[in-house]
Amino acid sequence: MMEKNGNSLVFKYQTLFYNNRQILSYATNEAFAFIGQGDENIKMYRGNFKIEDYVISRIPLNHFEITETSDSFIFNLSSNGQESLLKIKASLDSFGRLILNLTVSEDSYNRLWLRLPAQAEDKIYGCGEQLSYFNLRGQHFPLWTSEPGIGRNKNTMTTFKADTQDQAGGDYYTTNFPEPTFISTEKYYCHTNSYVYADFDFRNADFHELQYWGIPESLIFETAETYKDLLVKLTNLLGRQPGLPEWTDQGLLLGIQGGTARTYETVDKLRKAGVKIAGVFCQDWEGTQQTSFGKRNFWNWQWDPKLYPGLDTKINDWKKEGIRFLSYINPYLVNTSELYLEAANHNYFARNHDGDIYLVDFGEFNCGVVDFTNPAAFNWFKNLIKTNLIDFGCDGWMADFGEYLPIDVVLYDGSDPMIRHNQWPMLWAKCNYEAVKESDKLGEIVYFMRAGTAGSQQYCPMLWAGDQSVNWSLDDGLASTIPAALSVGMTGMGLTHSDIGGYTSLHGNVRTPELFMRWAEMETFSPFMRSHEGNRPTENFQVWDDDEAIHHLAMCTNVFTDLTSYRQAVVRENTELGIPVKRPLFIEYEADKAAYDIKYEYLFGPDVLVAPVYDECQATWDVYLPDDNWIHLWSGVEYQGGNYTIEVPIGQPAVFYRKNSAYADVFETITDKY
Amino acid sequence: MMEKNGNSLVFKYQTLFYNNRQILSYATNEAFAFIGQGDENIKMYRGNFKIEDYVISRIPLNHFEITETSDSFIFNLSSNGQESLLKIKASLDSFGRLILNLTVSEDSYNRLWLRLPAQAEDKIYGCGEQLSYFNLRGQHFPLWTSEPGIGRNKNTMTTFKADTQDQAGGDYYTTNFPEPTFISTEKYYCHTNSYVYADFDFRNADFHELQYWGIPESLIFETAETYKDLLVKLTNLLGRQPGLPEWTDQGLLLGIQGGTARTYETVDKLRKAGVKIAGVFCQDWEGTQQTSFGKRNFWNWQWDPKLYPGLDTKINDWKKEGIRFLSYINPYLVNTSELYLEAANHNYFARNHDGDIYLVDFGEFNCGVVDFTNPAAFNWFKNLIKTNLIDFGCDGWMADFGEYLPIDVVLYDGSDPMIRHNQWPMLWAKCNYEAVKESDKLGEIVYFMRAGTAGSQQYCPMLWAGDQSVNWSLDDGLASTIPAALSVGMTGMGLTHSDIGGYTSLHGNVRTPELFMRWAEMETFSPFMRSHEGNRPTENFQVWDDDEAIHHLAMCTNVFTDLTSYRQAVVRENTELGIPVKRPLFIEYEADKAAYDIKYEYLFGPDVLVAPVYDECQATWDVYLPDDNWIHLWSGVEYQGGNYTIEVPIGQPAVFYRKNSAYADVFETITDKY
Repeated sequence: MMEKNGNSLVFKYQTLFYNNRQILSYATNEAFAFIGQGDENIKMYRGNFKIEDYVISRIPLNHFEITETSDSFIFNLSSNGQESLLKIKASLDSFGRLILNLTVSEDSYNRLWLRLPAQAEDKIYGCGEQLSYFNLRGQHFPLWTSEPGIGRNKNTMTTFKADTQDQAGGDYYTTNFPEPTFISTEKYYCHTNSYVYADFDFRNADFHELQYWGIPESLIFETAETYKDLLVKLTNLLGRQPGLPEWTDQGLLLGIQGGTARTYETVDKLRKAGVKIAGVFCQDWEGTQQTSFGKRNFWNWQWDPKLYPGLDTKINDWKKEGIRFLSYINPYLVNTSELYLEAANHNYFARNHDGDIYLVDFGEFNCGVVDFTNPAAFNWFKNLIKTNLIDFGCDGWMADFGEYLPIDVVLYDGSDPMIRHNQWPMLWAKCNYEAVKESDKLGEIVYFMRAGTAGSQQYCPMLWAGDQSVNWSLDDGLASTIPAALSVGMTGMGLTHSDIGGYTSLHGNVRTPELFMRWAEMETFSPFMRSHEGNRPTENFQVWDDDEAIHHLAMCTNVFTDLTSYRQAVVRENTELGIPVKRPLFIEYEADKAAYDIKYEYLFGPDVLVAPVYDECQATWDVYLPDDNWIHLWSGVEYQGGNYTIEVPIGQPAVFYRKNSAYADVFETITDKY
Repeated sequence: MMEKNGNSLVFKYQTLFYNNRQILSYATNEAFAFIGQGDENIKMYRGNFKIEDYVISRIPLNHFEITETSDSFIFNLSSNGQESLLKIKASLDSFGRLILNLTVSEDSYNRLWLRLPAQAEDKIYGCGEQLSYFNLRGQHFPLWTSEPGIGRNKNTMTTFKADTQDQAGGDYYTTNFPEPTFISTEKYYCHTNSYVYADFDFRNADFHELQYWGIPESLIFETAETYKDLLVKLTNLLGRQPGLPEWTDQGLLLGIQGGTARTYETVDKLRKAGVKIAGVFCQDWEGTQQTSFGKRNFWNWQWDPKLYPGLDTKINDWKKEGIRFLSYINPYLVNTSELYLEAANHNYFARNHDGDIYLVDFGEFNCGVVDFTNPAAFNWFKNLIKTNLIDFGCDGWMADFGEYLPIDVVLYDGSDPMIRHNQWPMLWAKCNYEAVKESDKLGEIVYFMRAGTAGSQQYCPMLWAGDQSVNWSLDDGLASTIPAALSVGMTGMGLTHSDIGGYTSLHGNVRTPELFMRWAEMETFSPFMRSHEGNRPTENFQVWDDDEAIHHLAMCTNVFTDLTSYRQAVVRENTELGIPVKRPLFIEYEADKAAYDIKYEYLFGPDVLVAPVYDECQATWDVYLPDDNWIHLWSGVEYQGGNYTIEVPIGQPAVFYRKNSAYADVFETITDKY
C-alpha cells in the first residue's frame, strides 16, 4: 500500500484499488489487457471519415507478475507467464493522482485494449462533446475529430441523403470534439494522456474496454467525494477556460453577413425594436465564394474592403456605439488566395508523399493546411491573427475547423498524422491563444471554436456546438446541443453555446420562425448568445424579417442582460473551479437517482433549471424537477421536486429558479417584468 | 511428399503445396492461422439478421512444428513455440483430395481464422448464391442463410425504407443460399465441411482469410486442369442435382392464384393466345390470410377446398390437358392451423428455453418450426408431403423458406442452433427429397427452393433466385438473378431459375409490363420458365391483362419449347457432370481474360450466349462476345469475338449461338420463325 495527499493505492484480491475504486482486476481470471496489431483503413471526404480496422491479432495478457517498489506497483503482463509484453507501472504523483504508465515490449504492437472494472449500474459521462448520448453507458464511442455529420442518425432521411449524396451523414458518435476523458459514477475520472485514435466501449456490464490505436503514455485517475470536487480536480489537470469579456454580457452577438451597410442597417433596425446587441459576427468579412452547399467564405484571412467598405474605420466607430466586431478564421488557406501564395513560398503547408502541398477538399474548393508542427508556420499564422484580426480591431472571431488533418499528410517535424489528427484542434486553439495573449488582450477578446480535445480547456475560451441542422431532430437539431454542453462540461469545458437557429439547411431542412425562437429562448440561459444566418441564408428564416420574432428576440436579450450578475458569478465558477455553466442536474443533486439520466434539461449555474422546448408546436412541456423548492420563472408559481407538465408558450420555455437562491431578487425582477 | 491418384502433397519452402498450389504458407513468417474467442450478438427479425461479434481474442499462431507421417503432414501450431493450440492434419483421401483436418486444444476457442495464400490477380467464385458479386475478390462474405433483403444496397431508397421500416433491407452478401465453398482461378476448389457461421474475406492481395465461428471438421481441396473438370470433381464431392421431368419442357409454369376457376380461365385465355403452358403454380392452394406485406398463404399444408373447389378431381383432368398442378409448402405451421395443433400434440416443434413452442414471427403471423432433428417430426412432415401433396396429385411445389431457424431455439437432439441454422435448408431439402423418393416419383415431380447450402446439390432438384424486387436495380432486380445463377452454378447447383417479373413490390416499386417482358425473355434461356404474381398481385402488372405482353410471352414460350432438345442436353450435362446450365463465359473460354469479369451475361449451355437487357427503355445493348463465331439468334447475322452494340427490341434480347454448334439447326429454325 502507498499513500499520498490522502490518496491510497493498494493491491489486494488480485485487484489494484485506488481510493477503494477498482482500477485493474484479475479477480475473475480474465485478462484486463490485450495487445495486438491492427491495419486501419481510413478515408476522408470533406472532413467525414470512413474508418475500418482489420484486427490482425488481439492477444489476451492472461498472466501477470506484480512487483511492489517503494512508490509503485509494476505489472508485467504476458500471454504465457513468460516474456512480458506490456508493463503497467501504477504510482501516485505529487498530487496523489494515480498514474498508470504503459510500455510495450515491441513497437510492432499498435493496438491496446484495456479493461477497467465496472458495476452494472455505473454511468459514464464525458468523452468530449457527445451530441446523441449524455450517459455513455450502453454504447461505444470512437474518439476521432471530424465533421459532426448531417443528421447523425442512420434511420433519418436527412442522414440517408447526406450519406448517399455527400458521405456526410455522420452517426451518434461523430463530433468535432472527442476526448479520451470520462467520469464514472464510481466518482473517479479517467484521462488518457494521448491523442491516438481511441474507441471507448461502455457496453459491457462488468468492465469498460478502452481501445487505443497506439500505446498511450499514461492513464490518469483521480477520485473525489462529490462530482464538483471531481471536476475541480479534472480541470486542475487539464486546465480551465478563462472568463469572458464583460462586453459579451451586453446582449446578442448577431450573426450577419453581406457587408458594411447591411450589417449596420440590420443592427440599427433590431436595436430600435429593443433587441440588445453586443456585437456583430460577420463570417464573410474576408469575402465570399459560391458553392452548391451555399455561399462560402473566401479563405484568405484578411479584410475584404469590397464587401466591407470602410470597415477599417467603422470598426472603431461601432465599438463606441457598443457594437463589437467579430470576424472569422480557420487554419486553412484556399489555393486561389494571396495568403496561400505567401505560405506556399515559405513552405508553411503540410505536404503529401510526393512532396507537393497537400490540398484538402473543403467542398468544391481546395486548401493548404498550415503546418503547426513547423514553428515558423505556427508563428506566421499567429502573427497573421495578430495583424489581420487583432490589430485590425476585431474583438473576437469564430476560430473554425481543425478536424481535417489528413492521415496521409507529411508533417514538418515528421510526426505521425494519426496522432496529430486528434491533437490538431488543440494546436489550433493554442495558436489563437498565443496571438491574443501576446497582444495582451486576454479577457478582452473572445474566439469560439467547435473542434477541440485535451488542452482546449486551457486554450479555448468558448466552444460552440457545431453545425446543427435547422430542425427538431434529436441527434442533429436543437436538442442535440444540450447533451453536447453537458458532456463537454463533464470533460472540463464549461463555456459553450450554439448557433441560435441552427446552421445546416440541406436535404429539405429549412429553418422556421418557431425553431429560431425556441433556440433563442434556450440560449438566453447560456454564457453567450450568438445567432447565425446558416449555410443558405436566403432560403432560411432570418429574424430581422419578422416582427414577432424580433419582439421575441428583444425579450430574450433583455432577460439575458437582466441575468448578468448571476451569469457572471456562474461563469466565474467555471473559470475558477471548472464547474460548467450548463451543468447536469445530478452534480447539484447527487442523491437524486433520476437526475443521472436527464439529458435534455440542464442547470444554468447552481440555481436555474432549464428544460428547453426542443419539439415544434408544443403548448406544454414535461419537466422533471429535483427535490428542492423551485419558482417558475415566468409565473412565480412555486413547485417542489417531481414531474410536471408546464405551459410553454413561445417566449416562455420551462425555466425555474431555486427559491433560496442568493440571486432570487434578480429572478423576481424577471418574473415581474415579463 | 505423398501422392495419390496423380495428386501430390509436398511441404517445402515453409509451404504446403497440393498439386503445386500453395495451400498453407509460413514463407513470409506470418501466421496462417489464428484462434480465439468471440461473443456474438445475433438478432433475428422476420428472417433478417443483425449480427455483431465481439472478438475477445485473436491469437496468431506464429509457430508451428511439422511432422511427416506415411500419409500426412501434421502441423502443430502454437503462439509461443510450446503448447500446441491447433493441429492441422493434411492428407490425401482415396480420391486424391486434400483433406485438412482441424482439431483445437481447448473447446473454449470458438473462433478460427485461416489464411490461404493468394496472388493479387486471383479471382474467386462461388460461396453459394451471391446476387451482387460474381467475382468475389475485393469483398468479404458473411455466410449465413437469411432473407435475401429488399434493395440489398445501402445507397438505395428501397433499402433505406426497408431497413428503417422493417429491418429488411439486406446487403450485398445477404442470401438464402450461402455455402462455404469456392473456386479460385488458381484452379482449385476449397470446400469447408461445416455449417458454422463463416465469413470469407477476399479483400487482401496475398491471402484469403476464412473466418469460422467454431472449428470446422475439415477443409477439402481439389485441383483440375480446367474449370469444367473442377466442377465435375466438386459435384462428385457435393452431389449433383437430378434432372427435370420432361413435362417441364412443355412451356411456362404459370404463377397464378385465386382459386380453381380463375386458374383454369387464365390458362385457357393464355393458351388460346398461343402461350405454351406446362403447369400452374398455385401458392395459395392451402388458402390465404391478409397482412400488410400483401396477401399471404395460410400455412397449413393441405388443400383448401373453399378456395380451390373440386381441385381433388380437377387436378387429374388438368393433367390430361397437359396442365400440371404445382403447389406450395414450407417447413413451418401457423399457430392458428389444424396441422399446427397436430404437430404440437406430438411435440414436433422446436422449443424455446422456457420449454414452450418457439413461435417465429413471419410477418404478422406466428409459426412453429418443425424440428427436423427429431426423427419422428421429420418423418411426420415427410409423410405430410407424401399424403397432402404427392398423393393429392401435385406434380411439383415451391418448397419455400428454411432460413429462419432462430439461434436461441432448443432442438430435440440438443444440437447447437448456431450450426443447425445454416444446415436447416439442407434438412428441408432432404425432407422433400425423401418424400418424393419414397413415393417413387423421382424424375416425375419437381420442387424448387430458394434456400440451400452444402447438401442441397443432392437433395434439391431446382433452385430459384429468391424474392427479387419488381424493378431494374442491380442488387435486387432482374440483373441480380444473373450473378446469382453463375455463383451458385460455381458451387455445384446448375439448375436454377427466377420469378418471371420479380416478386417484391414494396416501398414504391411496382412491376411494369416492360420488366415482365424483359424477365420472360431472359428466362426463355433457362432450364425452367415460371412466373409469379408477386406479393401484391392486384397492384402489379399481370401478363394476362395485356395483349402485347401475352403475345410476347407466347413467343417466349414457343422459343422455350423449340429449344427443348438443346436444353435437355444441357440439363443432362448438369445432371451427369455438374456443369451448370447458366454458366459463366470463362468456363467455356478459359483463355479469354475479359470473360472472367463478366457477371451480367451467361452461356446457356455451351453454345448459346445470353446478354439479358436488365435496364428499362433500351433500344440497344452492349455485348461482349468471346473469341468464336457467333450467330445472332434473331437476325442470323454472324459476329466474331469482341464488343458490340446490338439492337434489342422487346422480344429480342441479345442472344447468340455458336456457329458450329451441333444444335445449329435448332437455332436456325428459331431465327427463321421469329
